[in-house]
Amino acid sequence: MAAPGENLRINGARLWESIHEIAKIGPGVAGGSNRQTLTDEDAEGRALFQSWCEAAGLEMGVDAMGTMFATRAGTDPEALPVFIGSHLDTQPTGGRYDGVLGVLGGLEVVRTLNDLGIKTKHPIIVANWTNEEGTRFAPAMVASGVFAGAIDQDWAYGRTDAKGLRFGDELERIGWKGPEAVGARKIHAYFELHIEQGPILEAEGKDIGVVTHGQGTYWTQLTLTGVAAHTGSTPMPMRKNAGLGMARILQLVDEIAWSHAPDAVGAAGHIDVFPNSRNVIPGKVVFTVDFRSPDLAVLQDMEKRLYEGAQKIADEMGLGLELENVNRFDPVTFDAGCVKAIRDAAERLGYSHRDIISGAGHDACWINRVAPTAMVMCPCVGGLSHNEAEEISQEWAAAGADVLFHAVIETAGIVE
Amino acid sequence: MAAPGENLRINGARLWESIHEIAKIGPGVAGGSNRQTLTDEDAEGRALFQSWCEAAGLEMGVDAMGTMFATRAGTDPEALPVFIGSHLDTQPTGGRYDGVLGVLGGLEVVRTLNDLGIKTKHPIIVANWTNEEGTRFAPAMVASGVFAGAIDQDWAYGRTDAKGLRFGDELERIGWKGPEAVGARKIHAYFELHIEQGPILEAEGKDIGVVTHGQGTYWTQLTLTGVAAHTGSTPMPMRKNAGLGMARILQLVDEIAWSHAPDAVGAAGHIDVFPNSRNVIPGKVVFTVDFRSPDLAVLQDMEKRLYEGAQKIADEMGLGLELENVNRFDPVTFDAGCVKAIRDAAERLGYSHRDIISGAGHDACWINRVAPTAMVMCPCVGGLSHNEAEEISQEWAAAGADVLFHAVIETAGIVE
Repeated sequence: MAAPGENLRINGARLWESIHEIAKIGPGVAGGSNRQTLTDEDAEGRALFQSWCEAAGLEMGVDAMGTMFATRAGTDPEALPVFIGSHLDTQPTGGRYDGVLGVLGGLEVVRTLNDLGIKTKHPIIVANWTNEEGTRFAPAMVASGVFAGAIDQDWAYGRTDAKGLRFGDELERIGWKGPEAVGARKIHAYFELHIEQGPILEAEGKDIGVVTHGQGTYWTQLTLTGVAAHTGSTPMPMRKNAGLGMARILQLVDEIAWSHAPDAVGAAGHIDVFPNSRNVIPGKVVFTVDFRSPDLAVLQDMEKRLYEGAQKIADEMGLGLELENVNRFDPVTFDAGCVKAIRDAAERLGYSHRDIISGAGHDACWINRVAPTAMVMCPCVGGLSHNEAEEISQEWAAAGADVLFHAVIETAGIVE
Repeated sequence: MAAPGENLRINGARLWESIHEIAKIGPGVAGGSNRQTLTDEDAEGRALFQSWCEAAGLEMGVDAMGTMFATRAGTDPEALPVFIGSHLDTQPTGGRYDGVLGVLGGLEVVRTLNDLGIKTKHPIIVANWTNEEGTRFAPAMVASGVFAGAIDQDWAYGRTDAKGLRFGDELERIGWKGPEAVGARKIHAYFELHIEQGPILEAEGKDIGVVTHGQGTYWTQLTLTGVAAHTGSTPMPMRKNAGLGMARILQLVDEIAWSHAPDAVGAAGHIDVFPNSRNVIPGKVVFTVDFRSPDLAVLQDMEKRLYEGAQKIADEMGLGLELENVNRFDPVTFDAGCVKAIRDAAERLGYSHRDIISGAGHDACWINRVAPTAMVMCPCVGGLSHNEAEEISQEWAAAGADVLFHAVIETAGIVE
């Protein structure tokens, strides 16, 4: 057959079981997962995934950033592999599906091919990218960024967590620094399945999001410096309150984001106050502003207005201000051919679908620089993610993996 | 003689040396001290103070809240003791003088009496109150509060620090839970020497502040609850951003404080954001608002406007709000006789002085409820305190201790 048949489906129950099996590693406190990158829990999750890959007959390779590549051979020794990737690391208060669905969805594609005895012309590789979340070590999507040549590997190794531990040291400590040169593998096409992490698909009752673009993300870390002083005995006119400066800048961030409604968004998720004592006026606040938009000009305008507005607020209040770009990711347009493969698969399988822009960053956004790439999304309840209450249904997961399966085998070529 | 002679002075060099000796215990990172209550460093500081008291021939008693009472006997077995007290615990980023000057100033009074062979009718007691700062265990001034009958001892024991450790357990662990019932000691008069922790005395070139009143302090802990969600994929209208709610309430706090200029002040020194990750909209923020005023009606108005305004902001933003009083300390008027003894001593010694309102809370504010009480203040550089850069001069410390010495011996009665 030239195209895969409509009757071919992945095993939704098996996929669901694997998702909930790995969720037991690094369990959260409220039903989710806390399996942050390069922790002991990350290592344990990797080992479980490795054992599943071995059971499925895949060959594991690991690169110097710790990314895992599990290969199912193709029939044509000259054909480049089709990749399916995402990540197994989580937020500190992560859900069970963010990232995990994409990696185990890839594994389910391979398991289904094995069940059906289907051979493909191109090899298929399931990838687990290291440190997609970026919450322990900034920036996010660092291993795929190094793979795509956008981030320097030594710089990535030197990133430190809140305790001052280095990324490179922690990667060695958990035993997942591999021998492969990062970015050496060539890619025929790259597919990633992910939960939407937003409310649109569920609200519109769509099974599948066909991701055509990725929002750009600009992260600015601000350090406001005032004077730590006694809250009681320092008259109001003599204060240099870095906490109040942070409050004014947060309002500015909100105003800037709304001014570019409806697509742009902005907020600060990370705020550290020093010395953080009830009777000391904050002498320093370090916080990170996250702006996103699918439009590069809008992103640049938002960043410019933040820089100017924050400086004006700092000057008015007598505060010191340092601004640092900790992540600047331009908007992404995915490959038309890969996008079409996903849209066609959804259509063929009878799933309702719509085109969608990804609000979050994904490893696919980096890989898009070096290979034809696209993404499949499935809904999540209430649009909630980066929250232990993140939830999807088994049917949504199965529909997403079915579409992934069909897009992959169409691209990899079934050998009759 | 009926009144002490003008020629009697404390030993300013010895006082200065002791202050800098104890500062070596729990050294800060920037020249100050980090000797938080009921830590190992607190225990080490207590032991050093005890050894100095023993060397000065004082008898040490310890109560069940860990407060240390070092007694120099008087000649009249019926006469109640004159107390000199303050605290040896510090902020996490504390200076060398906040509290320490008052305790070691008291020790210096006793050392000087010993040098000069002066006996007093009333005993003199130097007290080190446990947990004045309240930064590890809220509220501040807890041991003097229990002593004055304003705070319940078992409730104080049950207070927990950020790690969940209980005050009572930590007091036992460091070995300073004493046998004395708290508040059992009767007091003839209580004096406390303290740095101003504000900029007024230095700005006006005054040697001495004669403290007539203490500002009242109301602390409200606010817990704002939104929904933790992905910063990228959650459209602006669907967010429940607890961090933005906190920012708006901080601006309200500032407006409320300015509306009662010049005496009232307000700020939040403590702000914890959850989960505090760069790409998660804050689902929860816990922060504490500190309002102060010497006028009870003003304090009550500020608290009322905070409660109403914060609720309005939370309602508008769809956030949950919990409000908890973690400290409510009404304004204090010190004893006219003790205040006069301090003012007369400054006058007699030729030190420039002015009456002043204490902006900070002090143990003296609680003890004022159960005994005639007043305070002496000396300037500090730039008004800085609760900051490792806190600084005073040896001359300022000596002048403050001289005035303390004269007020104490006039009150305790020199035996000729």
